[in-house]
Amino acid sequence: MQRLAVGLRRQGSVGFVPTMGALHAGHIALVRRAVELCDRVVVSIFVNPTQFGPAEDFRRYPRRLRHDLRLLSGAGCDVVFCPDVRGMYPDGYATFVEVERLTQHLCGARRPGHFRGVATVVAKLLNIVRPDVTVFGQKDAQQVQVIRRMVRDLSFPVRVVVVPTVREADGLAMSSRNAYLSPEERKQATVLYRGLVLARHMVRSGERDAARIRAAVRRLVEGETSGRVDYIELVDAEELKPRSRLEGRVLVALAVWFRRARLIDNMTIRVGVGRSESCESRRRRQSQSV
Amino acid sequence: MQRLAVGLRRQGSVGFVPTMGALHAGHIALVRRAVELCDRVVVSIFVNPTQFGPAEDFRRYPRRLRHDLRLLSGAGCDVVFCPDVRGMYPDGYATFVEVERLTQHLCGARRPGHFRGVATVVAKLLNIVRPDVTVFGQKDAQQVQVIRRMVRDLSFPVRVVVVPTVREADGLAMSSRNAYLSPEERKQATVLYRGLVLARHMVRSGERDAARIRAAVRRLVEGETSGRVDYIELVDAEELKPRSRLEGRVLVALAVWFRRARLIDNMTIRVGVGRSESCESRRRRQSQSV
Repeated sequence: MQRLAVGLRRQGSVGFVPTMGALHAGHIALVRRAVELCDRVVVSIFVNPTQFGPAEDFRRYPRRLRHDLRLLSGAGCDVVFCPDVRGMYPDGYATFVEVERLTQHLCGARRPGHFRGVATVVAKLLNIVRPDVTVFGQKDAQQVQVIRRMVRDLSFPVRVVVVPTVREADGLAMSSRNAYLSPEERKQATVLYRGLVLARHMVRSGERDAARIRAAVRRLVEGETSGRVDYIELVDAEELKPRSRLEGRVLVALAVWFRRARLIDNMTIRVGVGRSESCESRRRRQSQSV
Repeated sequence: MQRLAVGLRRQGSVGFVPTMGALHAGHIALVRRAVELCDRVVVSIFVNPTQFGPAEDFRRYPRRLRHDLRLLSGAGCDVVFCPDVRGMYPDGYATFVEVERLTQHLCGARRPGHFRGVATVVAKLLNIVRPDVTVFGQKDAQQVQVIRRMVRDLSFPVRVVVVPTVREADGLAMSSRNAYLSPEERKQATVLYRGLVLARHMVRSGERDAARIRAAVRRLVEGETSGRVDYIELVDAEELKPRSRLEGRVLVALAVWFRRARLIDNMTIRVGVGRSESCESRRRRQSQSV
């Protein structure tokens, strides 16, 4: 792949989309964005063991290479890179990339070592493919921030492009793990999106107390479905630090278990002036904060 | 520097020598090797704070930029890259590269975080300069193994070249930290090299017990000088794991304090058949081990 990439770069700019396969319309949106931006596009398919915890779904993660290759050839991808685990992590492998702070909350708190595995494999893939542009999905919001931070901190000469989450018609975010859901769970799983819409509605109605929003979303999820909330958090959209009082750009993110399927989703909300807040009270607040 | 490096690569192969400045003949040997191997050579000068512990000599580490630039222009170097700390580690910096296992012994055990800082800054510099070849000195034997491991593990497309330790006429390894020594200490400091020669002599005379060699070298250092031994270790030359019974390629490494100056040195010894061991006893031992 490294040799091949040298040749690709001679032909123009190179875009790169790292995936774990079991591709869906969300991945294809990333590939299409890369095709728009670059002359040549490489997609990797690698179910990366170092980003799964010991009790997680590495073994049963869906693998559908033939289906993936068919999808990719229709999407304008030039090269598919499918390394095996021994090739990526040979005997004696010992090097890991850690991004601190950004990984303390959200999925980072629930999945110790997950983002270390993600940062490590992405660093390695960037060195192998050496793309000009790499494309990620906003669905994995924390991953996006971790990769952006790593690319900036370690001066990888690559532009990170982020594509909005692709959703099913009923709002469910596309995910390879949706394949784990029973038909009944699949119906209920729209509750993640409905929870985010509820949070946004509350913010727009003037709610600034994160705890009240979290409680309302939890009531929705656990009241109406068999889903079990792993977390609901409201954090600032850049540093991913939890906020109790909302302001600026806020990321609302949640993870919900349906039996063995853990689904995540998120939404970024700009906390403006609430509809319930009058111009008068706004002016008062602003003059206080000066 | 990243833009400049793009232009350099168009002119041919690029060699890179990362340094902390205060250059001496050891560094210049690295630069000359890079000039032999490559069309263009970049040297970085950066006293990297993340590889110093809180009680170490980051602040007083010698800085001699004008002297360094003079030396480098005579050595055939094309570009000198001198970033500042804020440029390398801006506010919010959060990413670190860790190489496990190899960093457990020798200096890694005495300087927690040191090799994390080294691996991180070298990864970043490799991304900035993107050289074809990078040159390191055998004087920092553990650093060499850590960088080799990191380059292999993270698939950096660069060849790591290692140059033998350059020594003063009396055997003292060249080091920027030799500047910390008083004239009297400077004389005594040859004891590091003499300790390595003693170790080699013992091995060649048939000694295979690492503890006896360590004790003899310690007696030499602490008996004949004011130096205080930080460590004397005999490890296998690849994995850097301590050996009690010597065989194969062994790295003898030591660190000695002279007041506030901590000096290191090392020697790789191939443990063959000792001179004191007869052909008969060798045959007996080999048949036992089958």
